[in-house]
Amino acid sequence: MQAQLIALDWGTTSLRAYRLGEQGRVLEQRSLSAGIMQLPTTSRSIAGRLCSDGFELAFDEACGDWLDAEPQLPVIACGMVGSAQGWREAVYQQTPASVSALSEALVTVRSVREVDIHIVPGVLQRSELPNVMRGEETQVLGVLASLPSSEAGDSLLIGLPGSHSKWVRVQDGRIVHFDTFMTGEVYAALSNHTILGRTLQCSEPFDAIAFDRGVAVARSPQGAAGPLSTIFSTRTLGLTGVLSGAAQSDYLSGLLIGHEIAALSQLLNQAAATLPDVVLIGSGPLLERYQRALQANGFAQVTIAEQATERGLWQVAVQAGLVSSSSTAGARPLPVEN
Amino acid sequence: MQAQLIALDWGTTSLRAYRLGEQGRVLEQRSLSAGIMQLPTTSRSIAGRLCSDGFELAFDEACGDWLDAEPQLPVIACGMVGSAQGWREAVYQQTPASVSALSEALVTVRSVREVDIHIVPGVLQRSELPNVMRGEETQVLGVLASLPSSEAGDSLLIGLPGSHSKWVRVQDGRIVHFDTFMTGEVYAALSNHTILGRTLQCSEPFDAIAFDRGVAVARSPQGAAGPLSTIFSTRTLGLTGVLSGAAQSDYLSGLLIGHEIAALSQLLNQAAATLPDVVLIGSGPLLERYQRALQANGFAQVTIAEQATERGLWQVAVQAGLVSSSSTAGARPLPVEN
Repeated sequence: MQAQLIALDWGTTSLRAYRLGEQGRVLEQRSLSAGIMQLPTTSRSIAGRLCSDGFELAFDEACGDWLDAEPQLPVIACGMVGSAQGWREAVYQQTPASVSALSEALVTVRSVREVDIHIVPGVLQRSELPNVMRGEETQVLGVLASLPSSEAGDSLLIGLPGSHSKWVRVQDGRIVHFDTFMTGEVYAALSNHTILGRTLQCSEPFDAIAFDRGVAVARSPQGAAGPLSTIFSTRTLGLTGVLSGAAQSDYLSGLLIGHEIAALSQLLNQAAATLPDVVLIGSGPLLERYQRALQANGFAQVTIAEQATERGLWQVAVQAGLVSSSSTAGARPLPVEN
Repeated sequence: MQAQLIALDWGTTSLRAYRLGEQGRVLEQRSLSAGIMQLPTTSRSIAGRLCSDGFELAFDEACGDWLDAEPQLPVIACGMVGSAQGWREAVYQQTPASVSALSEALVTVRSVREVDIHIVPGVLQRSELPNVMRGEETQVLGVLASLPSSEAGDSLLIGLPGSHSKWVRVQDGRIVHFDTFMTGEVYAALSNHTILGRTLQCSEPFDAIAFDRGVAVARSPQGAAGPLSTIFSTRTLGLTGVLSGAAQSDYLSGLLIGHEIAALSQLLNQAAATLPDVVLIGSGPLLERYQRALQANGFAQVTIAEQATERGLWQVAVQAGLVSSSSTAGARPLPVEN
């Protein structure tokens, strides 16, 4: 099938490249470790010119051969590549943010091979505690595009677990509010750089009992002490012989994710009486942990969305006129599984 | 004045030695960096024998000359020196813990110079989330001994801010409950090992406005998101030009101490309608921060106690019969200031 678009998900530590065909179908994909904080450094020739710029080198590694074959392919990118430390800054768009608002705000940078890369801006929420995201907004748009139209107007909570988890509330197809939890990064800092790391051991396989125990503590009356206090029990339950070193890592993970979900649920209850439906973006073991914690905290309806990034990049490209609209007719809904 | 007791406050990173006279008066004191995790390593002769044991070397540096002059002086010690990684393990005593209970459980280790060091055990609380302390129990006993007898029967909250803050509830002269908050250590881990450190700069002098802002956020409706979420605002308030790099460190400090005090207040409200009187142990800038946060959270009565460790060690030594009771007549109350 003929390609229509090259789509790049270009973050801090990784760069994923997709060659997309009609209707956004993935023809080929690649994953490189060339995130904006670890760009290549070895100079070489690109389009007949010796090149030492890390962004150029990474871009060429990711999709130079695709462009050699089809030089006219449009290129779109999202993520930290548009940050102040990126290739070209794409200034944050403010909430509420829609596909069309983001499509109108694309920023371009021209590569040495005379190809324009269209960068999707991140989103800024100017609340009392401001919030920012870059890349996640595109994933959210990808999920929204895949929903049956009957659900697109409903209020929905989209979760993006990760080093910095994002919880995004959407209404009428727009991003209206989001919160950030630094849970993943805090877990790493606590495990590697506090006293908890002295007794904690990496656990393989996943210790569901220890994890669930942490989740239960976070939402118990003892959990009102908050994570600054409950995390110390990782150590004391070890000292008292209740938790082995291997169990401590999943217990700590359960505590932190448990505090995140319990706090999220409290924030949502400030706004409405019932908890919203949740769509989680991502895959793998981390999502299983979030599913368990959401269930334990009373979130009844949780589905998982995959391929959200490439879907979102496709949607923005269509809206921006980078690909012809005829390619979009009958776009398949995103696979959603329970 | 003739000495009565050598008292050692021997923690993880430091070793403080006191030569105490009648009624526990401090005749001389020293501070060494020879905590149990950084003991001296250079062998030398002690009491005529070549010695390479780190505990022996540190002990001799701390008070060898005092013992040379008065070899009969009893020696008492508290803190991590009694942990499993210490010189001799003094098994935790369980709550409720009193001076007499701890005095009866002293563990001794004999040094190469034939002097016994009497080690005060730590305290363990076997609650659902167990809690432990070593050294703080002695400080709490020091405060209790100094209270007018009219107050000794009252319920009191004693706070020990630090790397791991302890909040100790005492009743009828006994330690009945305590909580730990890893606030200081979490602050260091977040500042040095997460993305927050990239924009945060050490602030000198103290930025009270930034600190108070953090405290206010923690107890606001936004604070319900908990520290895993609010800490991200340290970065986003920088990105939006509200907080300078220098202000971010005191803002983060205010957020974390604010979450600690807000959670403590919530735990206390589960048990009683009014917040108890607070005595803070310690001195210096950290205590000022806790005073500000306590005041902002409605704790009306906060006093500061100094010399709690040496007072506590003296009390335990008297109770254990290490010093003659005649030395204790008319013990001065501990200085307490607002």
